[in-house]
Amino acid sequence: MSKHLQRDLDRLHQDLLALAASVEEAIHKAIRALQQRDAALARDVTAGDDQIDEQENRIEDECLKVFALHQPVAADLRRVAAAMMIATDLERMGDLAEGIAKRALVLCDLPALAMPDKIEAMAGRTRAMVRDCLDAFVRHDANLARAVCRDDDEVDGLNAEIIQELIAQMKRRPEGVEEGLSLFSAVRQLERIADHATNIAEDVIYLVEGEIVRHHPEVFRRE
Amino acid sequence: MSKHLQRDLDRLHQDLLALAASVEEAIHKAIRALQQRDAALARDVTAGDDQIDEQENRIEDECLKVFALHQPVAADLRRVAAAMMIATDLERMGDLAEGIAKRALVLCDLPALAMPDKIEAMAGRTRAMVRDCLDAFVRHDANLARAVCRDDDEVDGLNAEIIQELIAQMKRRPEGVEEGLSLFSAVRQLERIADHATNIAEDVIYLVEGEIVRHHPEVFRRE
Repeated sequence: MSKHLQRDLDRLHQDLLALAASVEEAIHKAIRALQQRDAALARDVTAGDDQIDEQENRIEDECLKVFALHQPVAADLRRVAAAMMIATDLERMGDLAEGIAKRALVLCDLPALAMPDKIEAMAGRTRAMVRDCLDAFVRHDANLARAVCRDDDEVDGLNAEIIQELIAQMKRRPEGVEEGLSLFSAVRQLERIADHATNIAEDVIYLVEGEIVRHHPEVFRRE
Repeated sequence: MSKHLQRDLDRLHQDLLALAASVEEAIHKAIRALQQRDAALARDVTAGDDQIDEQENRIEDECLKVFALHQPVAADLRRVAAAMMIATDLERMGDLAEGIAKRALVLCDLPALAMPDKIEAMAGRTRAMVRDCLDAFVRHDANLARAVCRDDDEVDGLNAEIIQELIAQMKRRPEGVEEGLSLFSAVRQLERIADHATNIAEDVIYLVEGEIVRHHPEVFRRE
């Protein structure tokens, strides 16, 4: 690999990691805003989304420049293509964090429904998935990527339990239906953030092993 | 442009159009399954998702081959990069159609809640957006792409009205909360399909005009 290509790929990794850090922080703040009904924190997240979008646009431009300048082939080509897909997934996670923050703002104006306590565990697991899938990309680690795919099952399980709890609450107290729906929507967005982390993990497996595992969940369980 | 590159790009367009047609059909069937509580039709959609995934994987492979074989630059490069992003959006729309079909299956086992009649209009508009954004890509038509972005506002409006209607129904009849949540979830997935069509339209504007409009909605209103 040429020195210039190496340097551009290194910069791409740094920028992807910075984007992932911004997204992880947005998720963290959005969940805290939701749990603590903290409108200022929620507005902080919605205000920060533009910066995340800019970071993603810059990475997309960098990728196109690498294609044009270095015309990478084989493994390098896959790496740049993967970086582009990963940036897209990260940006959408940022949008979802913003969506959670918007639900938090709606909830600030509603009487407090009991917050299912498993949301904390689900949010923690999801943030770890965001960190791990990027680590897997940078370290070229297919095993870590497979672990992220498995973690998604746990998040799905927590998601299902939380939704059952919300349904029970809404039945008991129909005047809390709006609130229940806002929480339902926030939890579903959190679950989709975990799905995007899984997409990234699948891209990493493809990158490392040249095998397309997207849409083939059985692959993750064969270890 | 070389004859071989032209031929490969033509094939890529054909495959993208075929993928879009599969996705559009899946959306159509999923909505009909939801409205008519037709379990057989819903299962038809979930069974068809593998084929959509295969179509997308093939397009991704084709794009990587075009990068490697022809090392396209400038406009051609952007075109292949856009094709790859568009295929990803289409595949996720297919997943969302499958998600709607799964909600339809759940609803088949529940007593019938009144189906908000605006779902029909929302579904029709969304399917038109899927068709139009792909036409815009193939015909290199930034105006049509901008029209798709504007249509998304209409879909968002219908979405909000339908959700208000569902909230009112759930409050009136708390025993229908599960059902209401399943419908809420199906409608939200439909709305996300429209968002993906908007993503594609934004890619088309970028492709035609070289300008990144993703995340800059004000651009669509300046005509």
